[in-house]
Amino acid sequence: MPSRIAIVGTGAVGMYYGAKLAHAGSDVHFLMRGDLAEVRRNGISVRGEGENFQVARINCYNSTQEIGPCDLVIIALKATSNSELIDLVPPLLHKKTIILTLQNGLGNEEFLAERFGAEHILGGLCFIAVERHSKTEVERYDYGLIILGEFGRPAAKRTHQVAAEFIGAGVKCSVTDDLALERWRKLIWNIPFNGLSIVAGGIDTAAIVGDENLRQFTLDLMNEVIAAANKCAHSLPNDAWREHMKRTDSMTGYKPSTLSDWEAGKPLEIEAIWGEPLRRGVAAGARMPRTEMVYALLKKLDHQRRNGAP
Amino acid sequence: MPSRIAIVGTGAVGMYYGAKLAHAGSDVHFLMRGDLAEVRRNGISVRGEGENFQVARINCYNSTQEIGPCDLVIIALKATSNSELIDLVPPLLHKKTIILTLQNGLGNEEFLAERFGAEHILGGLCFIAVERHSKTEVERYDYGLIILGEFGRPAAKRTHQVAAEFIGAGVKCSVTDDLALERWRKLIWNIPFNGLSIVAGGIDTAAIVGDENLRQFTLDLMNEVIAAANKCAHSLPNDAWREHMKRTDSMTGYKPSTLSDWEAGKPLEIEAIWGEPLRRGVAAGARMPRTEMVYALLKKLDHQRRNGAP
Repeated sequence: MPSRIAIVGTGAVGMYYGAKLAHAGSDVHFLMRGDLAEVRRNGISVRGEGENFQVARINCYNSTQEIGPCDLVIIALKATSNSELIDLVPPLLHKKTIILTLQNGLGNEEFLAERFGAEHILGGLCFIAVERHSKTEVERYDYGLIILGEFGRPAAKRTHQVAAEFIGAGVKCSVTDDLALERWRKLIWNIPFNGLSIVAGGIDTAAIVGDENLRQFTLDLMNEVIAAANKCAHSLPNDAWREHMKRTDSMTGYKPSTLSDWEAGKPLEIEAIWGEPLRRGVAAGARMPRTEMVYALLKKLDHQRRNGAP
Repeated sequence: MPSRIAIVGTGAVGMYYGAKLAHAGSDVHFLMRGDLAEVRRNGISVRGEGENFQVARINCYNSTQEIGPCDLVIIALKATSNSELIDLVPPLLHKKTIILTLQNGLGNEEFLAERFGAEHILGGLCFIAVERHSKTEVERYDYGLIILGEFGRPAAKRTHQVAAEFIGAGVKCSVTDDLALERWRKLIWNIPFNGLSIVAGGIDTAAIVGDENLRQFTLDLMNEVIAAANKCAHSLPNDAWREHMKRTDSMTGYKPSTLSDWEAGKPLEIEAIWGEPLRRGVAAGARMPRTEMVYALLKKLDHQRRNGAP
């Protein structure tokens, strides 16, 4: 059982899961920067269906040196800030530290493995609709499930121990023997919805599936992702799009995280969600013209905005 | 030689070519609506490299009944306003009237042929960079060439007579025996550049060809259009994209007309430039996934804007 836990990255996801663990009595230590003083003063408040609590005393620090070695390091930074991890992570490590990335898309485990050793790395896919309302308040709108897996290996004893830690804190959590496959399965949803929500002018999932042309385009994108996963030897069934469409049709309109980032003027995880899957798929011989287009448009839109274009 | 000419549609294109003809002494009659009083008072001023003139007395009217039958009717309305032509055109017709559409994209000759008889219809492709600065001023930035052709027939004597009329007015003009082929050849440029200029966030041609990903996407779209034209039995060489890219690389950044329309809050010619080529290409067995995407995005962006979405 990991006894000492660090949270690196306190956006909505890091704040929510960290607060859940802390509320359940885990020994959680948050790295904070601009938010430090306020969280020290007010703690963290969590709202959501069936949960409504405040953790009044939060262990928070403005450097990982102050936190020191931990058994479990949860990475919840945006993938666009990965370079910061090179300096942030080492003070948190001992020989057996588990580094769990909850980040989106592909390439994050590899990034961490290369710098800190593959044997340390776990990945988790978060299925959650969550938003930070202020420096100290976070609200979960839906879901919350984490799917945990080892990087490049089947699940091990420690994987289940981490899952048990989350489950003990009231977080739905399951374990997979094939993390890479699950990452691709999640991309079937993220590649169309996170992308189209921006390039079609700032619309939610209901507007996408409700528009005849965009719905078809979503299906076409999903099929590209499924075919690419298969070319990369991650076997997804040809109708793996079906569960995603069914779920999306049944839920109320949801604003994908990348659209929230876009609207907030934050960096977009373009490489993790589109660039890396595209490079891997194309290198394996997949044809991904629609994904290429979404990628190209997002990059240009992002570039235009960051350079103050009209 | 057509002796009496009507201009229907006095955006930049209709105003420029009409003023050129009038300045050269042709008997030109403009249909005007909101601009009537000002053009009556001030005439039309034309600027451009090598030309700078004013036509002080313009024959203009606010109904086509007042104009009456003409030998040549030049249609320069946006294709999105075609339904207005059903009532506007008949008063201008006699038995041998030539109806020349200078509109963009595919489907305009067919629309006119169905209502007024195929034997009346000519089409013209305008290669021109032109902008209206006010109700009475128009400026040509580049080019000016018109390629004229008969609808569904090779060029005839009258086609050359119309060309002669333009050439006599100082407008570069050539005649084609295969109008449909030339329409597809022009689409090789319009489908990528007019589309990407909007969906990539309001950028000009130089920004498109200067971006590695968008440049590749432009080439991919061009190849889709060429393949679709060939499927539709309009034989374009496989490297027909080359002349377009060469020309675009050599010119200074240009804002496609659809982007100008978008920025001015005007309707976009989505069906003529993307919808109709797509329907014809796909019906003939072409695969056009990238064109489908540009089409879907433009439709949604346009819809969002017209419905005041965020």
